[in-house]
Parts: sequence; C-alpha cells; structure tokens
Amino acid sequence: MVHAIDWIEDDGGAAVRIIDQTVLPQEEVHLDLRTVDALVDAIQRLAVRGAPALGAAGGFGVALAERQGAREDWSPAELDAAIERVALARPTAVNLEWGARRVDAVRRAGGDALAEARTIAAEDEAANRELSRHGADWLLARTGKSTLRAITHCNTGALATTAWGTAYGVLKELHQRGALELVYVDETRPLLQGTRLTSWELAQDGIPHVVQVDGAASSTILRGLVDFAVIGADRIAANGDSANKIGSVALALAAQRAGIPFLVAAPMSTVDVTLASGDLIEIEERDESEVLAVGGTAMSAPGVRGFNPAFDVTPHDLIGGIVTERGVVEPTRTQPAFPSH
Amino acid sequence: MVHAIDWIEDDGGAAVRIIDQTVLPQEEVHLDLRTVDALVDAIQRLAVRGAPALGAAGGFGVALAERQGAREDWSPAELDAAIERVALARPTAVNLEWGARRVDAVRRAGGDALAEARTIAAEDEAANRELSRHGADWLLARTGKSTLRAITHCNTGALATTAWGTAYGVLKELHQRGALELVYVDETRPLLQGTRLTSWELAQDGIPHVVQVDGAASSTILRGLVDFAVIGADRIAANGDSANKIGSVALALAAQRAGIPFLVAAPMSTVDVTLASGDLIEIEERDESEVLAVGGTAMSAPGVRGFNPAFDVTPHDLIGGIVTERGVVEPTRTQPAFPSH
Repeated sequence: MVHAIDWIEDDGGAAVRIIDQTVLPQEEVHLDLRTVDALVDAIQRLAVRGAPALGAAGGFGVALAERQGAREDWSPAELDAAIERVALARPTAVNLEWGARRVDAVRRAGGDALAEARTIAAEDEAANRELSRHGADWLLARTGKSTLRAITHCNTGALATTAWGTAYGVLKELHQRGALELVYVDETRPLLQGTRLTSWELAQDGIPHVVQVDGAASSTILRGLVDFAVIGADRIAANGDSANKIGSVALALAAQRAGIPFLVAAPMSTVDVTLASGDLIEIEERDESEVLAVGGTAMSAPGVRGFNPAFDVTPHDLIGGIVTERGVVEPTRTQPAFPSH
Repeated sequence: MVHAIDWIEDDGGAAVRIIDQTVLPQEEVHLDLRTVDALVDAIQRLAVRGAPALGAAGGFGVALAERQGAREDWSPAELDAAIERVALARPTAVNLEWGARRVDAVRRAGGDALAEARTIAAEDEAANRELSRHGADWLLARTGKSTLRAITHCNTGALATTAWGTAYGVLKELHQRGALELVYVDETRPLLQGTRLTSWELAQDGIPHVVQVDGAASSTILRGLVDFAVIGADRIAANGDSANKIGSVALALAAQRAGIPFLVAAPMSTVDVTLASGDLIEIEERDESEVLAVGGTAMSAPGVRGFNPAFDVTPHDLIGGIVTERGVVEPTRTQPAFPSH
C-alpha cells in the first residue's frame, strides 16, 4: 500500500519520508526530509498534500524539529520558531496546525513527540476506514440503489491521508461491496491531482473510472450520469460550510439542481469548531504561474496575470451529508452541524 | 484587427486563410487552406473555431469546394459530397451547417457562392456590433451599476467570429463606454481557449483581466467578485436552452445562486428554431487525449480513460438574457424564446 508520509530512521538519522506527489504518476520518487526547511518546502510545493496527510506532517514535523534542534543545538526559542513554521506552512487545511499543536503539547509536557505523531497517523487510518463505512451505508440508503456511479474532485486517497482515504475511502468501500459502477474523476486544475493521483490510485485498486476536465463536472451531474458526488475537505466550520479544493462547489451546485446526494467525507480532525461559518476560513492563494503555465510551458501571452485561489467553500445548505468517523451529519437538518462541546 | 477567417486569391489560386488558433499566442501562423480536406481538418482540430467563425467557414467552404471541383474536374455528386463534408465537419455549432447550406443554395441557383459567403461574414460583424450594444445596455440597466466586473468562459472574440466578437463584443462595448473594470477569464480546459485566445485578445484591446482555472468560476461568482457572467453559444434551442463550451453551465448555476445576471450573446444565426429544447442538441465528444495529455505530455498513468464532451447545455431557466442583433430575450419570461415564425 502506498504511504504518503512515514517516519524513518537510517544511517543519515531521522527523516520524514514522503512520496513526491509533484512527479506522480510518471515517476515514483521518495524524498527523505531531514530538516524543517525541507519539510516546509515539501508542504508548500505540494510534494505532500491532502488535509489528513498534512495532519501527520504537522505531527512528524514536531518530532523532526526536535531531532534537528538537538543535532544543531537550537535554543528553545529556535525550536519553537521551527515548529511554528511547520504549523503555518499552509493556511487552509486545519489538520496541519492541529497535528503540530497536538504533538507540540506532548513535547512541551516532556512526552514522546514521535509516538504522538505516530498515534495521529494510526488514528487517521482508523477514522478513514470508519467514515468510509458510514458514508457507503448512507449513500446506499439515501439513493436506494444497489450500484452507484460517482463523481469526485481532487485526490482524497491514500496519497492525501495516512492510509485508505476519505472521499476516496468511501469509493473504495463501495467498490469492495460490489456497489460501485464507475467514477468520474475531475482532473483538478491547476495541479491535476485528479488525473495524476486519483486516477493512479483508482487504477491500482481496479476501480473503473474516467477522467474529465473540471468544466465537465456540472453537466456530467445535470445529464444524470452519476448518482452522487463525494469530496474531501480541508477545513469544516461548525455550521458545516466546507473548504475543499477549488472547483468543489461546482459539484455541489449541480448536485442540488439534479437532486442527487452531495457528501463531504473527512475525519473529525478536519472540523474546526472555532469557526462559526465558512466565511471565516482563510483561502490560500497560490502563485499565478500554476494557472498560466501548464507542465512548465507558458500558455498565456506575456504580461497576463493569473488568479489562483486554491480552495473554495461549499455552503452547508448545499451539503447532503458530512461523514466523519462518528457518522453522518446532515447540516441542513442539524445546526450547528458540529457543536463545540 | 485580427481576422479568424478570410478569403484570399494569389498565385496559388484561391484559399481560405485562417490564423492557426492551436498555436496562439506563442506563434501567429496563417494557414492558407486550398482544399476541402485541408479546411475540414482545420475545423476538426480547432485551428479555426467559434460558432460564428464556423458560419463563415461553412460559407467559404462551399466556394472553396467549387474552385477545387472546377480545378480537379469533379462530378456534381463529388462536389455535393465535398460540401456535405464541410457542413458536417463538427456537429454542435449550428452555424457551420447553416453557412454551408445558405451558400450552397445560392450556388445551386447559379449564383455567386463567394459573394454570398462574404455577405455572411459582413452580416456577422454587423450582428456582433449590434448585439454588443444591446447587451451592454441590458447589463447596465439590469445591474444598476456604472462600472462592472465580468466573468466569461472560452473565447468569443474576433478569433471566434468574423470580427468584433459576441460575448467578447459585449465586454469590448462596455470597455469602450468606460464601464468595464475587470474580467475574470476561465482558462477553458481542455484546449485553453481562455488562457491562449481570450486573454491575448483582451491584452491587445487593453482590457484589464485575470485568468483563472475553470474550477474557480463558481467561487469567483459566489464570493461576489463579479457583477455578471457572459458567454457565447454554439447552438440555441427555441426555448432558449444554450449549448456552449464545456464548463459554461457552472457559471449559470453559480450566477443564479449569487443573483447576478447571466447573459448569452450570439447572433441569430446561432439560434436553431427546429429544436424545441436543448435535450435535442447533439454534444460533440472529442478525443480523450485532449483531457489526458497537457501540452502533448501525458499526465495520467498508462491505460487511464478520458471523457471529453466539448459542450454543455445551460437550461433556459438559468439564463437571464439571450442577446442577439435583434435585442435581448429573457427566456424565463418569454416562451418560446425564439418562435419559429
């Protein structure tokens, strides 16, 4: 099974080992990140990505900072600053900061940071498997069908998590039950996580699928080609508003018109009860070059500017269900979807 | 001013001259198409494209077939077959077949095919300028604002028409009135007509704009960043359902939720009153390689399949107005939007 993120120890010392998601599927390259600088860079250029995987990256990042600090004789303030850089390397996914803070709290209390990071990873896999079962049950009950055709956006599989996947995990669970007919995969511009990553995972799992441009999502739904839409999330507000990869809300709008279920799948670590609504979620804007160039080649005329928000927010009233390891919440019926206590 | 399509006569005889839109903006290459085969190939690989430009291509194609037939001593049946190939080179844009049939009728009656084709081109430019004025008036009245921010999809400028543009023409008209602040341009995967063509035209016309991925369209609208959306059309049914480049209906769904006007701009030659509704519009499916490869580089793992519908249909109830040279029709108020007589 592919692992997006692992902790290794070898002759070179400790490292966070990732599979470099910027070069998949053409190349399977593992990177051993031995410094906080290297880890932050890998997070920022999306060599490791996906909200749950970033939770583990945040946790392992604290352990890595601890090792590097011991090696390089950092002051406590230097170590704190390094951990802060990991926690805030990207703004939108709540899991990154959450993972870093959780492990840092253990470290500050004199506990074993690495063990806590490993616990985060193990809990994530368990949560993913559990939410996938809940999600599959809900979809089969909600649609009343025994085989389903799906649409999904971006990558939410093993590459985006510590193992198994979130929205992808729901698809995998349905497939294992013999209840998944076909998946329409949005290519997910600008970085093509659908074409490059989700499709690669689906092929490895033997799940029938086709890749389409993101602009096709709405009409694929309106034409009745799918029975449900499922996406992951990078941050979910208390009312259920859900931030996810740019393009996600298009599926929600079309699903509402088509009357098919729109499901958000994420572990509870993605829920941020401190935010009442999605308006408060900070949306990362990435470099315009990701839009203007494709595969390193400039496609626009010189001087043209790009606008590159990395995420959008799906309002909770467009969401049929949010599935976590605790079960499915229907935010149109239950408010707040996630009470703070 | 750039011309997507022209008729020339030189030492090599007659030719349909086009600017090769597959290599813009990196290269400005003119192609002189001297045979029906060359013209059909150029249409099919989108070297010349855009519904109104295809109307002219259909018309000039008949004149070209006539010249080639005379040169190569075709039988009447061979000439008819060649004209048929032009008329049906692509299925979705009504204008192509319309232009070819109109000119062919003149030819069959012993008239001047070339002159009729030139008339189509001249009429298209006049229609575009007229519909642009109507569209600008309607948008300013409807929004009640003096400066507007826009979103558009695909390319509908001089490159897509014989001159001036349709949806693009409305933007240009607003710009000339000092009423256009900023245009968000969808890149328009898979062939990036937004990044490559619309942005190039906007830069030449000095109109401020940013390019974004298609997946950003919905949230750009929902976040209140634009005051209206305007697109062209490849075929409009009698009830107002409008086929346009894949991804268009996403803008319509978001505009409805945001409560901003969604305008379809096209000459009357795009209206097909023989079709009661958009369900009857044939949607061209193009080769999967357009989706799976970007800039000639395969982005997916080997064996992965692509789904590549080139158009979608926006239902008339999502359309605030359809502007033609005759004025604005509001299909939610007037049905059929375009009566057959």
